[in-house]
Amino acid sequence: MSRFTTTIDVRFRDIDAMGHVNNAVYATYLEQARVEYFAEVLGRSLDTTASVLASLSIDYRAPVELDQGSVTVAVDVPELGTSSIPMEYEIRTEEEIAATADTVQVLYDAENEESRPIPSDWRGTIESYHDL
Amino acid sequence: MSRFTTTIDVRFRDIDAMGHVNNAVYATYLEQARVEYFAEVLGRSLDTTASVLASLSIDYRAPVELDQGSVTVAVDVPELGTSSIPMEYEIRTEEEIAATADTVQVLYDAENEESRPIPSDWRGTIESYHDL
Amino acid sequence: MSRFTTTIDVRFRDIDAMGHVNNAVYATYLEQARVEYFAEVLGRSLDTTASVLASLSIDYRAPVELDQGSVTVAVDVPELGTSSIPMEYEIRTEEEIAATADTVQVLYDAENEESRPIPSDWRGTIESYHDL
Amino acid sequence: MSRFTTTIDVRFRDIDAMGHVNNAVYATYLEQARVEYFAEVLGRSLDTTASVLASLSIDYRAPVELDQGSVTVAVDVPELGTSSIPMEYEIRTEEEIAATADTVQVLYDAENEESRPIPSDWRGTIESYHDL
Repeated sequence: MSRFTTTIDVRFRDIDAMGHVNNAVYATYLEQARVEYFAEVLGRSLDTTASVLASLSIDYRAPVELDQGSVTVAVDVPELGTSSIPMEYEIRTEEEIAATADTVQVLYDAENEESRPIPSDWRGTIESYHDL
Repeated sequence: MSRFTTTIDVRFRDIDAMGHVNNAVYATYLEQARVEYFAEVLGRSLDTTASVLASLSIDYRAPVELDQGSVTVAVDVPELGTSSIPMEYEIRTEEEIAATADTVQVLYDAENEESRPIPSDWRGTIESYHDL
Repeated sequence: MSRFTTTIDVRFRDIDAMGHVNNAVYATYLEQARVEYFAEVLGRSLDTTASVLASLSIDYRAPVELDQGSVTVAVDVPELGTSSIPMEYEIRTEEEIAATADTVQVLYDAENEESRPIPSDWRGTIESYHDL
Repeated sequence: MSRFTTTIDVRFRDIDAMGHVNNAVYATYLEQARVEYFAEVLGRSLDTTASVLASLSIDYRAPVELDQGSVTVAVDVPELGTSSIPMEYEIRTEEEIAATADTVQVLYDAENEESRPIPSDWRGTIESYHDL
């Protein structure tokens, strides 16, 4: 099994009044990893792909602080739905897992305003990447 | 049953390249509602309350756009744990429910680095507010 | 002389590790006021108006904190250029002026990639609003 | 003359509804460069240094897009004041200068609520770094 990973630098602006990376910024880190996964694995820009984020779930395990410098986000897509791309994530600092998360992205057909099946070549590429 | 509600103005900066309120900004809306719930119901500032966000889960139902002007966030705390404050949310535009969400906030004792029980007066106040 | 004013609620997320509204968030407050000025005075959505922000300058006078609840932003357009809309701002809390700022917005012709003159009806409307 | 430079990855969340890095995010890029300058040159954390941002000025020269991947921010401190640290910046993409900017940071004495002189060892370090 292979996972896509990317490194994201922690910015001063990511820190909130509690002195840690703000909870909502974790969602931004996941989004950034998702965008890079799409670019790397599918060669596609996520924002020009007709899809919506259907759900997001984050378990916060450890705070992230500015002096940790960066986090690594691992992305895995273990099993595709018909129209949905469930994604699993780990946000890690050098020492530990800061959060685990999962999202569901759904492809849609903007013209007919309904979900559309994942194209078979995407399916093959995503599955091959997972099985590497 | 009563719910705490607050209105949050949508900012131009909340919109992302897709033209909708960004998914991570929903977490910011929830946080804002949570902070205001703590201030209103418990008379406390959330950032000076020794607690951590343990989990966050959002179901996105409808996009929010800038010209909708604002969203209303409803917060409910149906049942407290020993140390945890599970909170349920609805983010609504004038037309529809844009998202449902839930979070778990856990009180901790910074000195001993462990969770601490919800003080009984908080418990009473939160339960009374819920039962109003 | 009349000024456009709008009220912007301070969010928990606007506060940074120093405990005050972050310096970059002032730019977001100005942007929000600018967007609302365009909507109110010209009846236009700024993001569909072919224009760019050419410059931004902020003098920070006093910190803004979460418990101040909101700020008022006043916008004035004292004198138009040929293609440029110079805007002056004050960000105020209840007690004091938190910042003064100015921006220059420039209209452009996307097809020819050059600046374009302010349409005369806009000019009239903006000048009339200023002179009210 | 030497300049401090740092590279900042552009995030999807930095892009606004116009499809470019939002104007306020440039201020966040400058802040990040400023924080890193303080860490690198003075070995200090900016957020534990008693100082305030007194002013910020940005000239926007070219839009930055997501697929540019990152920007480089150069920081220079050509001449110190008594209590103030004026900083000059360039934000560059691979192709061009996206913005020039300057800020003034002022050291203060929190106890007496007044500005305080730049310590002589900081002055020496900053000047030496500039003259390298």
